[in-house]
Amino acid sequence: MKIRAEDLDDLALGSVFLATGGGGDPHVPKLLTREALKQFGPVSMVAPNDLADDAFVAAIGNVGAPTVSLELLPSIDEAAIALEAFEKQTGRRLDAVASYEIGGGNSLIPIMAAASRDLPVIDGDGMGRALPEAQMMTYAIKGIPSTPAIACDYDGNITSFTTKGTHVYERHIRSLAMSSGGMITTVEHGMTGAQLKGAVIPGTLSFALALGRCLRENRGVAHDVLAPLQDLFRKSIYGACHLIHTGKVIDKATRIIGGYDIGEATIESFEPQTTALHINIKNEYLLARRGDQVLASVPDLIIITDYETSEPINAERLRYGQRVAVFAVGCPDFYRTPDALSAVSPRHFGFDLDYVPLERE
Amino acid sequence: MKIRAEDLDDLALGSVFLATGGGGDPHVPKLLTREALKQFGPVSMVAPNDLADDAFVAAIGNVGAPTVSLELLPSIDEAAIALEAFEKQTGRRLDAVASYEIGGGNSLIPIMAAASRDLPVIDGDGMGRALPEAQMMTYAIKGIPSTPAIACDYDGNITSFTTKGTHVYERHIRSLAMSSGGMITTVEHGMTGAQLKGAVIPGTLSFALALGRCLRENRGVAHDVLAPLQDLFRKSIYGACHLIHTGKVIDKATRIIGGYDIGEATIESFEPQTTALHINIKNEYLLARRGDQVLASVPDLIIITDYETSEPINAERLRYGQRVAVFAVGCPDFYRTPDALSAVSPRHFGFDLDYVPLERE
Repeated sequence: MKIRAEDLDDLALGSVFLATGGGGDPHVPKLLTREALKQFGPVSMVAPNDLADDAFVAAIGNVGAPTVSLELLPSIDEAAIALEAFEKQTGRRLDAVASYEIGGGNSLIPIMAAASRDLPVIDGDGMGRALPEAQMMTYAIKGIPSTPAIACDYDGNITSFTTKGTHVYERHIRSLAMSSGGMITTVEHGMTGAQLKGAVIPGTLSFALALGRCLRENRGVAHDVLAPLQDLFRKSIYGACHLIHTGKVIDKATRIIGGYDIGEATIESFEPQTTALHINIKNEYLLARRGDQVLASVPDLIIITDYETSEPINAERLRYGQRVAVFAVGCPDFYRTPDALSAVSPRHFGFDLDYVPLERE
Repeated sequence: MKIRAEDLDDLALGSVFLATGGGGDPHVPKLLTREALKQFGPVSMVAPNDLADDAFVAAIGNVGAPTVSLELLPSIDEAAIALEAFEKQTGRRLDAVASYEIGGGNSLIPIMAAASRDLPVIDGDGMGRALPEAQMMTYAIKGIPSTPAIACDYDGNITSFTTKGTHVYERHIRSLAMSSGGMITTVEHGMTGAQLKGAVIPGTLSFALALGRCLRENRGVAHDVLAPLQDLFRKSIYGACHLIHTGKVIDKATRIIGGYDIGEATIESFEPQTTALHINIKNEYLLARRGDQVLASVPDLIIITDYETSEPINAERLRYGQRVAVFAVGCPDFYRTPDALSAVSPRHFGFDLDYVPLERE
């Protein structure tokens, strides 16, 4: 299947839903990707299983605090320079590029990069959503080394990393992002086709496209969109989709701490008897709770949409006064395995509670 | 001339004097260098002018907040790994290594590195003292690119940089140092022999050795050491040596801010009529002032010694209650040129005053 310029609106819409608040603003990446597709032609989307076992693939995306993505705009150059430096560093030609997270701008960056190099893009990603840290990726959890890796900043400065362990890598790229204006493009997790197949969350790019189409075709208030969304998620690798809250944002505050957007939002309920919902944020929406009651927690997906249109709203665009709906979706099964939870349970974000999976429908 | 294990006490002593408070604690680097010289044999010290114009040289040293040098100890491995990675990155074999600052531990690291690789070390450096930032180096001021450069941390993690301009490079290595426990070893400013000759402050390594010998042979109170020091500096590339203050440290506070030790010290005078001296610190002693009167300012050298023994005291070891002497020495002429002052005047450290050179004797 080919990804064409006319697919990008749906893709961006679905990606922001799966981004669970993070992944970076998709607006400029969408414009850039549209230009790249017009200039270089459509990009082939390859199912992981159709990739040769000895193919060479790497993950590409932007790293930083998502608020920065509204201001420090990406360019095609960064992705192209980073890919070229990565091939030089590894001494190998890439056969395809993959997304490390299917969310927001980071769903589009790999397509833009692939277009500029006439490479296919993998239908799948390393998170099945967005998550704030590199060691939370399926690739890392499955033991694929994150380095050698390349980072490129807005000015074309190149940094390459050869680190022991993804935790150290995460610390280093985060501090580089901070000293580079808040956002960098990285190419990392060079892997074979066989390694990719054993680690990737498959089909998420085509699912994001279908999800965006569903949101567009059913554009309307959250209660009306719920049923089509539930139908779609029922046929997916994700768990069930729940509408857990509707109301008005009465407080939202994040600060850039250590290179992440960290903070909280409070959403009053439209129903007078229902108390407000609190959302904890670290780039992504991590926890949805009413008082002590946790309604949904990472790695399950928490999504905030505009109540009237059901357009998903990234954390950096969440504002006081918005009328919103909050959805929760069960994460792919991979993230409920002990290995995955040893990297992404609520405790890894500093919350003193265990992960309780969203019940199935 | 060869540098031997028995030279290292004098070299370390003289180096801490020239370090003007910074450069890192020399104790562990001295022990490591002694071991390296015993194991690999003496290291040749080469005058810049004896180097072939097409020789390939790079500068090596440790980057971070000097307080960290008391706790996160260096090793021979970091230097050796960094040199090897640098040669791999540039595709060239090094013919010699140079110091980027002749001060404290950073005078010894290049000797240790040179010993481990059977390379000569340059008699000279890129500062003639210690200074906190990469763009303050003669190599950078003379337009020699700081990158490609390699950084290695205590665990052998390697990062390579290809950046436009030394200011960006400085920001990136500083943030890497912070995310690597506070200290890294870098190899940078790869240059030809011809480039080195045009940029280096020559003879500073052998001068540090002579200075250490002078301090050892004249060990005693500051007033007695002054004359021999003045004799020595009179015959050097430095300006005159002045004893500007003697007294007791009644306050000293630095914090690690942005990867630098930043703070102030106050030294009461032994003479009842003389008001206290204030020293501003950013890794190095930058400003010595009594109230509004500036007695000495960067790039001139400000040195604090133990009053009784005249042993120089690095900023990270300066403590409440120490009885000290404060010396000021004119910097090498290079640092009084407009090009150099455009990188190292007091204004570049945030002080609202122009550089006023120490008068000659």
